[in-house]
Amino acid sequence: MANLVTVGALETTDTRTRLIEAAIDLFTRHSFAGTSLQMIADELGFTKAAIYHHFRTREQLLAAVLEPILDELRTVVESAEAKRTAHARAEHMLTGYAALAVRNRGLVAVLAADPSVATALNERSQWGDLIKRQLALLADVDPGPAGEVKAAMVFAGMAGAVGPAGAALDDDVLLDHLLDAGRRTLGLRAPRRLL
Amino acid sequence: MANLVTVGALETTDTRTRLIEAAIDLFTRHSFAGTSLQMIADELGFTKAAIYHHFRTREQLLAAVLEPILDELRTVVESAEAKRTAHARAEHMLTGYAALAVRNRGLVAVLAADPSVATALNERSQWGDLIKRQLALLADVDPGPAGEVKAAMVFAGMAGAVGPAGAALDDDVLLDHLLDAGRRTLGLRAPRRLL
Repeated sequence: MANLVTVGALETTDTRTRLIEAAIDLFTRHSFAGTSLQMIADELGFTKAAIYHHFRTREQLLAAVLEPILDELRTVVESAEAKRTAHARAEHMLTGYAALAVRNRGLVAVLAADPSVATALNERSQWGDLIKRQLALLADVDPGPAGEVKAAMVFAGMAGAVGPAGAALDDDVLLDHLLDAGRRTLGLRAPRRLL
Repeated sequence: MANLVTVGALETTDTRTRLIEAAIDLFTRHSFAGTSLQMIADELGFTKAAIYHHFRTREQLLAAVLEPILDELRTVVESAEAKRTAHARAEHMLTGYAALAVRNRGLVAVLAADPSVATALNERSQWGDLIKRQLALLADVDPGPAGEVKAAMVFAGMAGAVGPAGAALDDDVLLDHLLDAGRRTLGLRAPRRLL
């Protein structure tokens, strides 16, 4: 009996993971609004009932897909906010966001650029709040509209640059180029490196 | 009789314009894939038959929405390609794209950032070709992956920055900030101005 329960739990975890992976793939190709639970079921050869066992709505599935990224972003934002200078706060935010974008290339494009995701997440105020804090951290090196426009360029630009443009590049190389471009945009000096 | 024909033609033009305007509004809020012809009909209080008279599919409506922007972008790309130096080509492309983005704020976000639009436009190879030429013009100041990443950052970044971040700014002010940020990212010197 204990064995049966364990097998059941493993199967459930596995199905959930496969659902999330299929959702990411379909979201990045068709956008969030263009992906139905039926399309995810078809992609995996599942029945819709099998999906309903894990997620009642597409919004619940989106939340599960984005949850680990949001947690990671929150950690970066909070540790950036704890730095002493505007320059250090922007540098920490830039580095953390670039690393997150490189590790989650397809997802960050969905997250940052798809208007239907923004609409779906609008009710989850903590998400909008997190992006506002991220943009403020990037903008405060040059307070006012100029800094806000530069911050928005870096936020949307990095999400775009981890797409097709960077597809052929290794994570380390892409990250270096993103950081260089982001620092140029914001007017940040590159930090000294230990040799 | 002549009068009747004229009135009919005016009505048709007007309906088409209203359809396109409602589509732009819905696309920017729900993404292209998240907007059905039915939603557009509901928004305007039209029947679906009235819409079918103008557009048979959502893809036809998208094409009509994007056509003027694509024509404008093509003109910018072609005149940029005719410049003599890589610097002049990038500067012309940057300036033209920024001006286009500022004048079509909501639409450029749909155009550049919505994955479902990219998928729908994929069959129209001239569109993908135009974006490739735009990216090459921006990237060639610094050939190789570094330049390609910077070009992608500027392309996606400007589309993002004309969204909520720049909503409160006048066209002229937003354009100046976009050009400054874009030149910083690409490493272009600001052109001398006549006083």
